[in-house]
Amino acid sequence: MDWNHAAPEPCVTFLPVIPLDPAAPQRRIPYAPASPLLRPYVPQAAAFRAGTSTPRDFLEACIATMERDEAAIAAFVTHDVAAARRAADAATARWRSQAPRSPVDGMPVVVKDMIETIDLPTQMNNPIYAGWHSRRDAAAVHALRMGGAIILGKTVTTEFACGNSGPTRNPYDTSRTPGGSSSGSAAAVGAGMASMGFGTQTHASTIRPAGYCGAYALKATHGALHAGGVTPLAATLDHVGLIGASLEDVWSAAMVISRIVGGMPPHPGISGPMDVPAARKPTRLVRLATLGWDETPASSRRAFEDAVQKVNAAGVSTLDAQNDAEVAALEVELRGIGDFANDLLAWESRWPLATYRQHGAGMVGSRIQDLLIRADTMDAARYARAVADRDRLRQRVAALAARADGFLMLCSSGPAIHDHGFTGSRNYALPWTLVGAPSFALPLLAAEELPLGLQLAGFADRDADACAVAAWLRDTLLPNA
Amino acid sequence: MDWNHAAPEPCVTFLPVIPLDPAAPQRRIPYAPASPLLRPYVPQAAAFRAGTSTPRDFLEACIATMERDEAAIAAFVTHDVAAARRAADAATARWRSQAPRSPVDGMPVVVKDMIETIDLPTQMNNPIYAGWHSRRDAAAVHALRMGGAIILGKTVTTEFACGNSGPTRNPYDTSRTPGGSSSGSAAAVGAGMASMGFGTQTHASTIRPAGYCGAYALKATHGALHAGGVTPLAATLDHVGLIGASLEDVWSAAMVISRIVGGMPPHPGISGPMDVPAARKPTRLVRLATLGWDETPASSRRAFEDAVQKVNAAGVSTLDAQNDAEVAALEVELRGIGDFANDLLAWESRWPLATYRQHGAGMVGSRIQDLLIRADTMDAARYARAVADRDRLRQRVAALAARADGFLMLCSSGPAIHDHGFTGSRNYALPWTLVGAPSFALPLLAAEELPLGLQLAGFADRDADACAVAAWLRDTLLPNA
Repeated sequence: MDWNHAAPEPCVTFLPVIPLDPAAPQRRIPYAPASPLLRPYVPQAAAFRAGTSTPRDFLEACIATMERDEAAIAAFVTHDVAAARRAADAATARWRSQAPRSPVDGMPVVVKDMIETIDLPTQMNNPIYAGWHSRRDAAAVHALRMGGAIILGKTVTTEFACGNSGPTRNPYDTSRTPGGSSSGSAAAVGAGMASMGFGTQTHASTIRPAGYCGAYALKATHGALHAGGVTPLAATLDHVGLIGASLEDVWSAAMVISRIVGGMPPHPGISGPMDVPAARKPTRLVRLATLGWDETPASSRRAFEDAVQKVNAAGVSTLDAQNDAEVAALEVELRGIGDFANDLLAWESRWPLATYRQHGAGMVGSRIQDLLIRADTMDAARYARAVADRDRLRQRVAALAARADGFLMLCSSGPAIHDHGFTGSRNYALPWTLVGAPSFALPLLAAEELPLGLQLAGFADRDADACAVAAWLRDTLLPNA
Repeated sequence: MDWNHAAPEPCVTFLPVIPLDPAAPQRRIPYAPASPLLRPYVPQAAAFRAGTSTPRDFLEACIATMERDEAAIAAFVTHDVAAARRAADAATARWRSQAPRSPVDGMPVVVKDMIETIDLPTQMNNPIYAGWHSRRDAAAVHALRMGGAIILGKTVTTEFACGNSGPTRNPYDTSRTPGGSSSGSAAAVGAGMASMGFGTQTHASTIRPAGYCGAYALKATHGALHAGGVTPLAATLDHVGLIGASLEDVWSAAMVISRIVGGMPPHPGISGPMDVPAARKPTRLVRLATLGWDETPASSRRAFEDAVQKVNAAGVSTLDAQNDAEVAALEVELRGIGDFANDLLAWESRWPLATYRQHGAGMVGSRIQDLLIRADTMDAARYARAVADRDRLRQRVAALAARADGFLMLCSSGPAIHDHGFTGSRNYALPWTLVGAPSFALPLLAAEELPLGLQLAGFADRDADACAVAAWLRDTLLPNA
């Protein structure tokens, strides 16, 4: 028998499972919303056009921050600084000749290690994927690269975006978690090492870490950003998340992705302008507590209450469970979402989690094994009930579109917690994952001298409307920024 | 700067682009529907239970056929016969102790090289993916493996399932194409080298090669078979296809997949019995011509007309464009589907095809470059029109459910053609890809002493109903099989 081809062994070069380093340097930087560590890119366009700054200068500032702070923060798994410098020089030449490819041309971008890149390995914080190359860019990475963005490196994720935590620390207090599962992208952007970081969100994995690390973020309408080449977890919950240094950065990145690769077919992608929509003062916002309020400490509650007062003082009314029966009914419903959210996640993630377990039960962590055990207790009828529960929640939220312009709440139950093994409560972020509606993380508040993200959610397929309200909130709560 | 990890080079071990071998041995075997080369597995269950045959015996027969015929047919890219023998021995022990895991326990299965396997590489007939390992099983492969099936090898696909053809030849006449893009799976099953072959269908890539190679096939309702780990091409068109040696084989495989991994979330999977549904005589079938009839030579038309006469003689009436206005309107509509089908394919496949082109324009074939050029001429509005055109077609087909039990036509415009560079006309298979309704290939007819597949299509999410009608057609047209 003469076969032309035999199966080679997979190439394994190193283990990407990275423990927290107890000997890493510690740091604590008091957070002030008006002077964050963020490094916005898109707002620099005028300087790039005028030649008073260049994408290469911008990148060098990011690299200097990486060199200084990465030992303390541990945001990266792999990087390619030399390739980034070459790409920055090419972008510099395009801006100099007044021909940038897009508003993000030359933007330094980091990519959660669940998302495929054609140059760097994709390792998912699990030894099965040590040294693994997909040989392609994920759709959203491909789009930004075509728009001129610079892929600086891959960032730490929890194991397969749902398991054990990695080594990353919070840039404002290294004794605290950066949140997860998009830990490294949020920390790198929050620390000023890059202007944009790709995350994913299946329960709370983009909004929560962005809030903890003092970054902006957009979790767009489900399906509106193409998720091809993002390792799937639970298809009807998985979102591509954009964590950025400004609202301009996340918005323009979302639009470049939408224009170049669109959404997950048949979703055409976000429709809207390439530049961030003009701030629009809402008429009425829904103020939501969710289960998260019970967990939120007093100083964070006060910071949120202050923000609501400023919003009211600016002439925007708020509906809440006390003054509106429809909101009260929604609050009741939101208290019950955890269980069906877990059912949706467990059932839909059977594949791929079960195939990872084929490598040997010891090759996946305990949280992943627990998810598989939950799935084993389920049947198709229970999954169908979870889908129906979610549909009911979606209808209840959509019904409020007639009376309100969005939903205001926190990104997380207070600032980043001290537990490095736990990425924080999901209770504020989970509703918008389930509903599939756009939500923004806005780093406009502080508590305990740490970032406290404000969250603004909108209505499905009205991402630009939500962004305009988010811009108004930013201008109102941070008027001199 | 002290980074723990650097990016390794991808491991490249061999080029999977395989040319047609002009020196390969030739063969011609006259096709008779009553005595095909097929090797059905599920119908052997009683023999396995009784111990008069074993899965290992069965596998050895498949391997003997491979050893004799693979040089002429070239169905395989890689295989692992030693691992298959070990798996067959384990299945033999389970049947012996009356504890098979499923009806497909021990079934020899081959996998189109677009579909990921944890053991064998997935190479997609393009040099970018030479030696590439995904390190996981695709969802459908995982499910069959959990059900005890044996993954015997990977089979030839056209480049990325939409580009240039591979070296595979038709098992009944090696001077003819096996069809594509699931060329190797159809040829291996048609030749009796395996009982089941995974294919994919984005336009016609499962039903057409199954028809050409004298095999059964099921293209289930869109989304009803989990497509995770199948390299995407066009998400709303991509189907997992099952090419099998009997209706029992394809049906039980579909049900094992549905029970173990379900459909693409939120689709729960096919609902129905694990064993093939009892044959059910339909009341009325729609007889469709489509554009394919214009291309169909006289001997194939006669074979189809004979089959329709037998169906009528058995007491089943047929609606067609001559006797029914609704069918006539559908036929008119079907003549116009090619253009919007091409738009859907080109737009949705921009990613991943464009990221393959990042490796260098010379790394992808001319058909893939043409698809990308078509996409470049499109905008979101034109894509939206194509989606709307498809929706209208779906409604027109669904409306016939009140008056008919299914649709009868050929799988292809006559038997396999002599052109090895072209995988045949898509005109008979394309409608059911667009509609997303189940369709079966039934190797019940012959023309020019070659297989001529009969196609029975049903209605979306009524896969079991369609299968019962397919069983009746088989029993009626091949009463002594």
